[in-house]
Amino acid sequence: MMALCLPSLHLFFYPHPNLRSSYYPYRVPVSSKLRASLITKEEAPEAEEPPLPSSLRALDRKPLSAHEGTLTPRSVDFNAWYLDVIARAELADYGPVRGTMVIRPYGYAIWEAIQDYLNAKFKETGHSNMYFPQFIPYSFIEKEASHVEGFSPELAVVTIGGGKELEEKLVVRPTSETIVNHMFTQWIQSYRDLPMMINQWANVTRWEMRTKPFIRTLEFLWQEGHTAHATAEEAEKEALLMIDVYKKFAYEQAAIPVIAGRKSKAETFAGASCTYTIEAMMGDRKALQAGTSHNLGQNFSRAFETQFTDENGQRQHVWQTSWAISTRFIGGIILTHGDDAGLMLPPRLAPVQVVIVPIWKKDDEKIGVLSTAVTVEQTLKSADIRVKIDGSEQRTPGWKFNFWELKGVPVRIEIGPREVADGSVVVSRRDVPGKLGKDFGICMEPSMLINHVKSRLEDVQASLLRSATLFRDRNIVDVRSYEELKEAISQGKWARGPWSASLCLVDDSQRR
Amino acid sequence: MMALCLPSLHLFFYPHPNLRSSYYPYRVPVSSKLRASLITKEEAPEAEEPPLPSSLRALDRKPLSAHEGTLTPRSVDFNAWYLDVIARAELADYGPVRGTMVIRPYGYAIWEAIQDYLNAKFKETGHSNMYFPQFIPYSFIEKEASHVEGFSPELAVVTIGGGKELEEKLVVRPTSETIVNHMFTQWIQSYRDLPMMINQWANVTRWEMRTKPFIRTLEFLWQEGHTAHATAEEAEKEALLMIDVYKKFAYEQAAIPVIAGRKSKAETFAGASCTYTIEAMMGDRKALQAGTSHNLGQNFSRAFETQFTDENGQRQHVWQTSWAISTRFIGGIILTHGDDAGLMLPPRLAPVQVVIVPIWKKDDEKIGVLSTAVTVEQTLKSADIRVKIDGSEQRTPGWKFNFWELKGVPVRIEIGPREVADGSVVVSRRDVPGKLGKDFGICMEPSMLINHVKSRLEDVQASLLRSATLFRDRNIVDVRSYEELKEAISQGKWARGPWSASLCLVDDSQRR
Repeated sequence: MMALCLPSLHLFFYPHPNLRSSYYPYRVPVSSKLRASLITKEEAPEAEEPPLPSSLRALDRKPLSAHEGTLTPRSVDFNAWYLDVIARAELADYGPVRGTMVIRPYGYAIWEAIQDYLNAKFKETGHSNMYFPQFIPYSFIEKEASHVEGFSPELAVVTIGGGKELEEKLVVRPTSETIVNHMFTQWIQSYRDLPMMINQWANVTRWEMRTKPFIRTLEFLWQEGHTAHATAEEAEKEALLMIDVYKKFAYEQAAIPVIAGRKSKAETFAGASCTYTIEAMMGDRKALQAGTSHNLGQNFSRAFETQFTDENGQRQHVWQTSWAISTRFIGGIILTHGDDAGLMLPPRLAPVQVVIVPIWKKDDEKIGVLSTAVTVEQTLKSADIRVKIDGSEQRTPGWKFNFWELKGVPVRIEIGPREVADGSVVVSRRDVPGKLGKDFGICMEPSMLINHVKSRLEDVQASLLRSATLFRDRNIVDVRSYEELKEAISQGKWARGPWSASLCLVDDSQRR
Repeated sequence: MMALCLPSLHLFFYPHPNLRSSYYPYRVPVSSKLRASLITKEEAPEAEEPPLPSSLRALDRKPLSAHEGTLTPRSVDFNAWYLDVIARAELADYGPVRGTMVIRPYGYAIWEAIQDYLNAKFKETGHSNMYFPQFIPYSFIEKEASHVEGFSPELAVVTIGGGKELEEKLVVRPTSETIVNHMFTQWIQSYRDLPMMINQWANVTRWEMRTKPFIRTLEFLWQEGHTAHATAEEAEKEALLMIDVYKKFAYEQAAIPVIAGRKSKAETFAGASCTYTIEAMMGDRKALQAGTSHNLGQNFSRAFETQFTDENGQRQHVWQTSWAISTRFIGGIILTHGDDAGLMLPPRLAPVQVVIVPIWKKDDEKIGVLSTAVTVEQTLKSADIRVKIDGSEQRTPGWKFNFWELKGVPVRIEIGPREVADGSVVVSRRDVPGKLGKDFGICMEPSMLINHVKSRLEDVQASLLRSATLFRDRNIVDVRSYEELKEAISQGKWARGPWSASLCLVDDSQRR
């Protein structure tokens, strides 16, 4: 019954479903029949490895001249725009090994903001952090039948250690259910040890053929929660609770109006009884799986004999969940909110919420403008607003406006000689271009300025969510027949239809 | 000249130097001659893998009965005591792959406290966090001659990816200087891009033959800072600054009176021009390398051609540093402060600073005692003290006292019916056994209670540092001849002697 809390009784079909399924952080065994039926004609198979966009390398070689080119417009080539933004906003770069990514400080700071929020939520909901080794004996992966089927094609395998061929090959963790169960068997004896609720922040490796920075990389960072419970009901409740934590995070922090629901059987995580997901619509109307929470049933506990003695002295297998969000989410933020001027960051996750651009022409104006800028910076810092002054003399104010717009900073404050004289500043918001987005003559008096800036940050946060929700809803079509479905997909929209799938708990018994 | 800031003009010799050098997180190319000269007779070579202590497994199988045995006394078998503490305090467990470790929630919480402190210090000193891929092309490792010599014996190598044999083998990072330099060549063009100062929190892998939880494991967690500078002087200043950050951390947070200094040439990091270290004396008087900061000179920048254009338009190789602290530090805390009752945690890093044990005999006392305990808990929480109530009914107060002493909680509060009637509590400190460590009749009035507890936590913090410093200084002998040196070592003490080594900057030119 609990699955009814989620809007999962509709099935969504998405354009470009084969790209979408390869977006998954969790490998799902996709039936080739289902995929085939949904692939649209215009979709050419992707190359094994997208060619290195010249812009990405070139710009990293001269970061200071990043402004001199223009971003590829989204309407011309959405993928090129995405890579341009990542390069010029200095979010990430390619690593030396195919498909790997270096997360640069500005991109990593977004990840830290995501971690700060989720980490607190995980602890509030009773989970403890810990750390499992990343090397997993190959035999562990083979213990759960659908798990090995789903993961074996994409494993990185260590065969040499300390100069010698290893007796048993080691898998670099693609996910940790197997090693977690191995350890749980040692820590769980009786019902008093349950529930066991843990999380780890870690890197994972999946040998993906088609990669894209943040969205799908050979190695990525994530958190993976793992829990064990005495009853099926408790596990289901936990799986639903965590998808709800993710959904709130997406709405309230990332301003991404995800749709929470349940995956079809074909798209369920390899080893799970059912998978809950949050799906987000990107700016090109593709679907991004932004987070998942799995009810694992007893699939792993039976494979690993993870048992407990219940209150009646009977041995029982535990019921489990696992759930994850990864650095892919950063890709989701770029692809949801970005525009032709670059990145647009939701204020709650933005490493820099406010940039101050001091403007002067004559040397005798400089000191007054800069010292006022520093005062404004201190005022905002005292209110825990993340603020930065761009006081460099090598760039014009116009260059700086473009650069910080490209970086997606939500609010800009301009201070020139006139503002110094007036005791006021100009406040511009990133999401509304031109004069419409500017507030002139905002008083510098600390409490007034802080109130104004805080309320502008909230406005931008709300406006990003509103725009993304409008865009999403304009691009979902309710369909009642296969013909209507095909029509919607061919227009690049999402199709929503009724779904006769039964609930997770009912389904589970049929699954094995 | 700067090296003079550090007390590095004495050379320390330690008992069991070969064990000590295998304690290193950084692999150093140890000359066999030097090692031989210092190895003492009574030291038998260690087994390849210490046998699994039965206590570790057995206790993890029944954590609730951990109290029923007794800890091995430190004087009987220091190593067995160490493993007992790790098992019973639930700090870590063995992973399924030889030499790997699972860090359990209580142990991981200590790591989180270490991270919180250091992360803030790294940012204050101008460093940004980022993330580099863990797979490094084998050819990178070979580029710097002494680096490959030091690290090649202990690499884990991925040879299979996505089911196929790889064309170039990939090393699972043992440290990141090589890949960092590869990326720096793309981000550094001119002197304006310098200094570049970054850090990453990551897992690293070294195929160690002799392992010990926290101290030396196949995979461990650490932070690694990497910086690039325009001049040799700046790099030296940075290397010294960071060893100073580590030293302050050790003294002020971990209450470990480390000795900061410079490594001899034989113990310098593989690839560095010179290595600064903080060395700590453990309870068995062995030395633990607790953190290192390397002046890399231009060794890696020459190998990778990491160059910048200086203010005169000339191309120059950058000057670099790297520095690291790892989960080994947790082992250092256990081995420095622990006693025969178990762990003893410095309050500033303790996951639980205060445990409240409610005591009642009759049912009609229970409600009053428990509700008072909750009030006291709320009072302390409001002052940001990390506090926990152990209100379980399955255990006696005596059992709980022992258990939380074993867990190293610095302060215990006891509340019984008499305390409820009096409006007072009993406050015990972990570091002073028996009645001497107890304060009776401490008033529950919030501000008085908070002041008392805070001052007790500060007392424990100071007392741990004082004890460790006394112990260290009692076990260092000043020596003036090789005979005196041998004598000191044979007594299991540290020997301190004058050292004629020249300074880092001077030394560098002679090194290559």
